[in-house]
Amino acid sequence: MTIKDIKNYLGQFFDSVELEGDGECLISAPAKIETAQKGEVSFVANDKYTKYLCTTQASLVIVHHSVSVDEFSHTTSFLKVRDPYTAFVFLLKKFATPRIVASKGVAPTAVIGEGVSMGERVSIGACAVIGDRCSIGNNTVIGPHTVLLHDVIVGDDCVLFPSVTCYDGTIIGKRVIIHSGSVIGADGFGFAPQSDGSYVKIPQMGIVEIGDDVEIGANATIDRATMGSTVIGRGAKIDNLVQIAHNCRIGEDTVIAAQAGISGSVTLGRQCVIGGQAGFAGHLELADRIQVAAQAGISKSFLQPGIALRGYPAQPMRDQLKHEAMLRNLGSMKAKLDHLEKEIEELNAK
Amino acid sequence: MTIKDIKNYLGQFFDSVELEGDGECLISAPAKIETAQKGEVSFVANDKYTKYLCTTQASLVIVHHSVSVDEFSHTTSFLKVRDPYTAFVFLLKKFATPRIVASKGVAPTAVIGEGVSMGERVSIGACAVIGDRCSIGNNTVIGPHTVLLHDVIVGDDCVLFPSVTCYDGTIIGKRVIIHSGSVIGADGFGFAPQSDGSYVKIPQMGIVEIGDDVEIGANATIDRATMGSTVIGRGAKIDNLVQIAHNCRIGEDTVIAAQAGISGSVTLGRQCVIGGQAGFAGHLELADRIQVAAQAGISKSFLQPGIALRGYPAQPMRDQLKHEAMLRNLGSMKAKLDHLEKEIEELNAK
Amino acid sequence: MTIKDIKNYLGQFFDSVELEGDGECLISAPAKIETAQKGEVSFVANDKYTKYLCTTQASLVIVHHSVSVDEFSHTTSFLKVRDPYTAFVFLLKKFATPRIVASKGVAPTAVIGEGVSMGERVSIGACAVIGDRCSIGNNTVIGPHTVLLHDVIVGDDCVLFPSVTCYDGTIIGKRVIIHSGSVIGADGFGFAPQSDGSYVKIPQMGIVEIGDDVEIGANATIDRATMGSTVIGRGAKIDNLVQIAHNCRIGEDTVIAAQAGISGSVTLGRQCVIGGQAGFAGHLELADRIQVAAQAGISKSFLQPGIALRGYPAQPMRDQLKHEAMLRNLGSMKAKLDHLEKEIEELNAK
Repeated sequence: MTIKDIKNYLGQFFDSVELEGDGECLISAPAKIETAQKGEVSFVANDKYTKYLCTTQASLVIVHHSVSVDEFSHTTSFLKVRDPYTAFVFLLKKFATPRIVASKGVAPTAVIGEGVSMGERVSIGACAVIGDRCSIGNNTVIGPHTVLLHDVIVGDDCVLFPSVTCYDGTIIGKRVIIHSGSVIGADGFGFAPQSDGSYVKIPQMGIVEIGDDVEIGANATIDRATMGSTVIGRGAKIDNLVQIAHNCRIGEDTVIAAQAGISGSVTLGRQCVIGGQAGFAGHLELADRIQVAAQAGISKSFLQPGIALRGYPAQPMRDQLKHEAMLRNLGSMKAKLDHLEKEIEELNAK
Repeated sequence: MTIKDIKNYLGQFFDSVELEGDGECLISAPAKIETAQKGEVSFVANDKYTKYLCTTQASLVIVHHSVSVDEFSHTTSFLKVRDPYTAFVFLLKKFATPRIVASKGVAPTAVIGEGVSMGERVSIGACAVIGDRCSIGNNTVIGPHTVLLHDVIVGDDCVLFPSVTCYDGTIIGKRVIIHSGSVIGADGFGFAPQSDGSYVKIPQMGIVEIGDDVEIGANATIDRATMGSTVIGRGAKIDNLVQIAHNCRIGEDTVIAAQAGISGSVTLGRQCVIGGQAGFAGHLELADRIQVAAQAGISKSFLQPGIALRGYPAQPMRDQLKHEAMLRNLGSMKAKLDHLEKEIEELNAK
Repeated sequence: MTIKDIKNYLGQFFDSVELEGDGECLISAPAKIETAQKGEVSFVANDKYTKYLCTTQASLVIVHHSVSVDEFSHTTSFLKVRDPYTAFVFLLKKFATPRIVASKGVAPTAVIGEGVSMGERVSIGACAVIGDRCSIGNNTVIGPHTVLLHDVIVGDDCVLFPSVTCYDGTIIGKRVIIHSGSVIGADGFGFAPQSDGSYVKIPQMGIVEIGDDVEIGANATIDRATMGSTVIGRGAKIDNLVQIAHNCRIGEDTVIAAQAGISGSVTLGRQCVIGGQAGFAGHLELADRIQVAAQAGISKSFLQPGIALRGYPAQPMRDQLKHEAMLRNLGSMKAKLDHLEKEIEELNAK
């Protein structure tokens, strides 16, 4: 691909793509600015990395329109756009060679139940197990060793990586990606305490519904509802080792970072961003576009959209930062207190 | 099932079940009070939900004896019991249709080792791998893709969902449920530091023993003991993504919520309740019936039964709540301090 | 094995091994000092356990040179060494009977792709799936149900337990152990936010590289780099349910305890020790030999080697302990403040 080809490709996404340098140069791969070599393309979207422009060996760097490139190497060309980060993401997509999760068609070692319906160009990997009455959409890839229990519906253009487990009744939309080891639809953690201290299991009769364009990381767990559905909204992104308990509703385009834990019957709004290892008590609600800091502990509902939360128990960012500043100042409070004590002693002595 | 049938069924569990309304009405499914429709049964066990009694479309609602139902819809019947929540749980059990984890018998694609003994009516799912000399009890279901290494004993009436892994020597009691992705008996995290900064692996020669009526969630990990056994007591309930390290002993009927982590050689008493994401330092002990709040960090033993713990480092609930109240009051302490400083200045000036 | 045999065996590792007692006695197994029986060997390396020397039934106990053993049972023999703990670890290794993860050779149910190269004495377990062009080193054991996507390289003498997943391109060194359920090389959690609140997936084109002598616990997740490699250094030990995000570099001989989470592009030095449930913000760096307490939240880089960190946000141990002591003293600060207030009132009244 020449730099001119890249310019044309990016032109699909950006009104203005300016070239400075040699458009005929061949580009074979993307790379990080720190390590890029001749024939490679990189990007700078953050001032922290501007220094690498002086020394990079990259043949092409994507930068913002505002960057003046005259001072830099004459062997490097530049493409200037409004959003070099997103431009580079689109370039990565162009260079990416898709991994083969499973060959087209049904592997001879896959085990297909009765009454399964499959769309066109479906791939089912080695030893995958598809339960009775499952339905698999067009172009969907089911990795080796992935297990669908009975009555699971998977939409078009999905990729389930190896060793995913979907319990019976799970409904998955279109273009959903689920990474290895994730378990969708296991029983919610529901037990009725008895007077002798033991527990009776509460049947978990609901299902999990996953919207279009959701991505779920590795070894995440999303439990089925007691009744009705646990719902993952369209476009939500869920990282590795996240726990989503029964009866939760995760809003559209909400992002949940690794190891966060959402207790039962929590409702998260749309476009929330939940930090890693954050925890939620049960039965609470967050409004749209709320940001939760990593390791925060959310103990009650927050219904004002767009706020940021932090700390344990979590409170709005400004209050929490003020609180943390006060904590950091405890030493000087203590010093002042001791000083006043002495002064009062002196006053008393007079 | 008619409402009368339900009344009779609940009569097995409760001394008194009072019917108000039409006993002949047919009930086809349980539902949440917010969404229940004609022909469905729901319940109200919490005042927060009493308001739905005015508007519910349910044909039957289970309520407490003390609820006066005259004011509510004439199309809804009521059954009054001492404990409507538990009554509804028993009803759920009656309505639940069991998921098919594996068909009866040994799937043709299952791989069975030498010297395996199996009880009656055992189900072994597709591609399950049963190691040499394993023993599987009557009526037990081993899901597709579940792997037992050699010398594993599984009791009667267990369900191991797909893709569970039990390392060699694991002993599992009766009526145990293990959800997908859980790993039982992997090596404890034990390494002897060497003078050059590297580590020598300490062989983990023990096993894991799981008592009767235990339920383990998805993607949990329970490590084998270095010597002897890691023990999960009868009736314990362990949620998704919980870590239980080597040599732990978890008491009977103790409940551990998602993502909690129990370090090596910890002993938890009976009927403890451990909140989500709580963490335990190693080699400590908790007495019976201790409650640990979510995200707490337990750094030492607590030997008084029945107390509640909270915070980091965790302390008894009353102390911790007092501490947290004091923290919330830091601002007013600071204000008072500044005020006193000024007063002293004035006093000094006089 | 006689006690003399054990003395000779330990003589390989220690300059001086002193025997007190009967060297001909037969020893059949190692055991904990609390429960050891006749014919068993145990050890005491910690004063806390010295009391058991009076009552143990063990036929042999390994102790430190400094322990005076005359007062103890005449039926117990003693071997004295410089480091009884390490001596016992070596003894455990001698007694350990290796579990059979997979029989030698390729199981008939394993699925082997095209162009796979295998060393000598390789074991591939039942239903394992080895993708195209993978390379497996000498003596390496691939457990049942483990899946390698295409182009994975596994070195000599490795053990991958059942149900490990390695995505395409993963490179694994020699003598690496990976426990069940771990997922190596899943996509990093990278999404470019769009102006409408949705996200575009950033292709994750890099790989994971795991050095020699690494051990990874059960259900851990290590994500592939966006470009280049996520690197786990030689000798690192990673516990169950640990999350290591894309582009991280974990130093040699660094130890990470269960449920810790390392965000994207973090660099950890050599010989660090990271406590359980600790969390790291992205793009930061830790110097060599830093110790991080359990549940700590690391929010910035720490570049001084060998320090200890604790708390949220984490700070050097001494500062944090001082801070925690001050917090514990808040009550007395408040009391003093109230007292001073009263005194000033009195002074003002005069």
